Amino acid sequence: MLNNFAYYTPTKVFFGKDEELNVGKIIKEYCPKKVLVHYGKNSAKKSGLLDKITSCLDKENIKYVLLGGVVANPELSLVREGIELCKKENVDFVLAVGGGSVIDSAKDIANGVANPDIDVWDFSLGISKPLKTLKKGAVLTLSAAGSEMSNSCVITNSETGEKRGYGSDLNRLDFAIENPELTYSVGKYQTGCGAVDISMHTIERYFSVGDNTDVTDAVAEAVIREAFKSGKECFNNPDDYNARANMMWASSLAHNGLTGCGRDVALTVHQFEHEISGKYPHIAHGAGLAAVWSAFARYVYKANIDRWYRYAKNVWGVEEGGKEEAILKAVKMQEDYYVSIEMPIRLKPLGVKKEDLEELALKCTRNKTRVLSGYMTLDYDDVLAIYKNAYE
Amino acid sequence: MLNNFAYYTPTKVFFGKDEELNVGKIIKEYCPKKVLVHYGKNSAKKSGLLDKITSCLDKENIKYVLLGGVVANPELSLVREGIELCKKENVDFVLAVGGGSVIDSAKDIANGVANPDIDVWDFSLGISKPLKTLKKGAVLTLSAAGSEMSNSCVITNSETGEKRGYGSDLNRLDFAIENPELTYSVGKYQTGCGAVDISMHTIERYFSVGDNTDVTDAVAEAVIREAFKSGKECFNNPDDYNARANMMWASSLAHNGLTGCGRDVALTVHQFEHEISGKYPHIAHGAGLAAVWSAFARYVYKANIDRWYRYAKNVWGVEEGGKEEAILKAVKMQEDYYVSIEMPIRLKPLGVKKEDLEELALKCTRNKTRVLSGYMTLDYDDVLAIYKNAYE
Repeated sequence: MLNNFAYYTPTKVFFGKDEELNVGKIIKEYCPKKVLVHYGKNSAKKSGLLDKITSCLDKENIKYVLLGGVVANPELSLVREGIELCKKENVDFVLAVGGGSVIDSAKDIANGVANPDIDVWDFSLGISKPLKTLKKGAVLTLSAAGSEMSNSCVITNSETGEKRGYGSDLNRLDFAIENPELTYSVGKYQTGCGAVDISMHTIERYFSVGDNTDVTDAVAEAVIREAFKSGKECFNNPDDYNARANMMWASSLAHNGLTGCGRDVALTVHQFEHEISGKYPHIAHGAGLAAVWSAFARYVYKANIDRWYRYAKNVWGVEEGGKEEAILKAVKMQEDYYVSIEMPIRLKPLGVKKEDLEELALKCTRNKTRVLSGYMTLDYDDVLAIYKNAYE
Repeated sequence: MLNNFAYYTPTKVFFGKDEELNVGKIIKEYCPKKVLVHYGKNSAKKSGLLDKITSCLDKENIKYVLLGGVVANPELSLVREGIELCKKENVDFVLAVGGGSVIDSAKDIANGVANPDIDVWDFSLGISKPLKTLKKGAVLTLSAAGSEMSNSCVITNSETGEKRGYGSDLNRLDFAIENPELTYSVGKYQTGCGAVDISMHTIERYFSVGDNTDVTDAVAEAVIREAFKSGKECFNNPDDYNARANMMWASSLAHNGLTGCGRDVALTVHQFEHEISGKYPHIAHGAGLAAVWSAFARYVYKANIDRWYRYAKNVWGVEEGGKEEAILKAVKMQEDYYVSIEMPIRLKPLGVKKEDLEELALKCTRNKTRVLSGYMTLDYDDVLAIYKNAYE
């Protein structure tokens, strides 16, 4: 029987060319006292986007304060700095200008400010849940994480080497502005990483435990196929508006909850990856996912042959031969796809050290205190075996 | 180029078995002074659902007042009665218990109460727009109209024989409770009507003017296929939980905006149908849609052969032969599908009179003052020709 589920995607999306020029008018509706404009290292500043945003705010007489410097795998330390700044400046609205890292950092800051009695890292550790949050929005510049519509927030504590995500409806943005042109400057490598991340958000929902989710499954297959297709098009033609647009919209739908309705969602491959880029911050999230994917797929598919065969058929169009043959062919096609967009399919080329695999498996299983869920539950030995199979 | 679009679906959905038992707790969150519980003619009362709902409200000490009597093609007169009742009783929350008619009536009441200086029928006529609304939710008992997540509201003024819809984000419900079991008692005929209506909401978006909406198209095709499939399953097995569940969820997704993102949405076949059931209130909306669909399809498909061929291929799996051949085969398959769920495919069997067709065409084109948009725009002569082709 289809599981009960809740579906809630309140984020108002303003999609298309020049939509960021409305940011002042859009924020004005929330009557903010002061806005924190949160951004990354260089690109928003260099491209002139940040100036565009602030002049839109100026035009509407909206006060703001700036905080840049968010890195890939956003840091707890900057979140803490942001919280202090917001308190000092009496900020009540957070605007993220960037991709998933900036948005996640903004979400965590909004939660930290609104719940002053709780240490913000406790949200990531699952010790506490935010009870309130600030109003918040984003101008998206990267199609990948899907954070613009998701309920999730992933923060890295570089002191402990931990990268932890938490979900909450309070993590949903009030609005997201998505102009595909703002992603033209995203390089081939990051575009490839985005294509992996987007599709994986829905692939993992698809392989989460569940039954009779026919509508969800059909929509999920559509989103996965389009994520692959548009990702490749963007990789080949970075300035193709329609390709960038479809990749961007796929990114939002792939992770907003739609493609997992009625399934017991567990982002298992993400759990593997979080340990990788947590330990090696130079590794891009999407690359880490691609590197571990096929080892995972080949290890677990036998636990639900029918489900994996459906995936082979409806996502990769493979029907011929027996079911297992079709599945293995589809997994290989997905590997080939990754290679075609210059994504890794093993861990060694990414600089992961073989002697670290046990440590990764230990962290991933929280020192053997948790198993990863799915049609096949994965304990420490399974997790280690998958890391090893993914190695070279 | 993909058109700019806005996407906004704030309705919180609580989906699954027994979810209606949480209605008290859910409404409590909105701190209402008094709730209008709005419902239809008999079924909610007879089935015991209404008692269940009111005892949930009692348990949470929520005050309420009842107003039943909503009919299919909900009446302006009852809306006016509801507005007066709400004003008198100081109601600030409207709960619909029923299908699309009850929900639309509830939406219009909420808008009427919140905008006391505007005559509520002016919203339907497009003379005024609601500027505020009351908080509102629904316990859904029929999978068809998609009103539970849509921005639309369709009301009939039986004094003038006009049936008019209007869209507004204020028409979006705050929450919708969707328990598939509450639709077990829906008879075969209404189930068939629902299957037609659900799929048509997305088919019409699919054939609205637009380009490069790849993600939207793929999702739309998935929703259309699943609406057809689950509709047939429910027709054959009324107590199949999973079939009822998938039909219900398809109903919400088909009309919440998702399947039209980036397209210039015009529900053209609905425009034809509104005149039919406006003039003949005994005709069910879904039956009217089915009766006019194939005449419409055969009349307009040449204006965009590639689009219609894509539909034939991706929705009906027809590829063989030339494109036109495939399209005509798919249209025939859809007719056959309608017949298989005992839906009409012509107007005459529904009791429409041949001598009324000119009147319908005049009303549909607002006395020849508007054309219907689409790849082929339809003026009075086209509309009349389609009504005639649909006749017998």
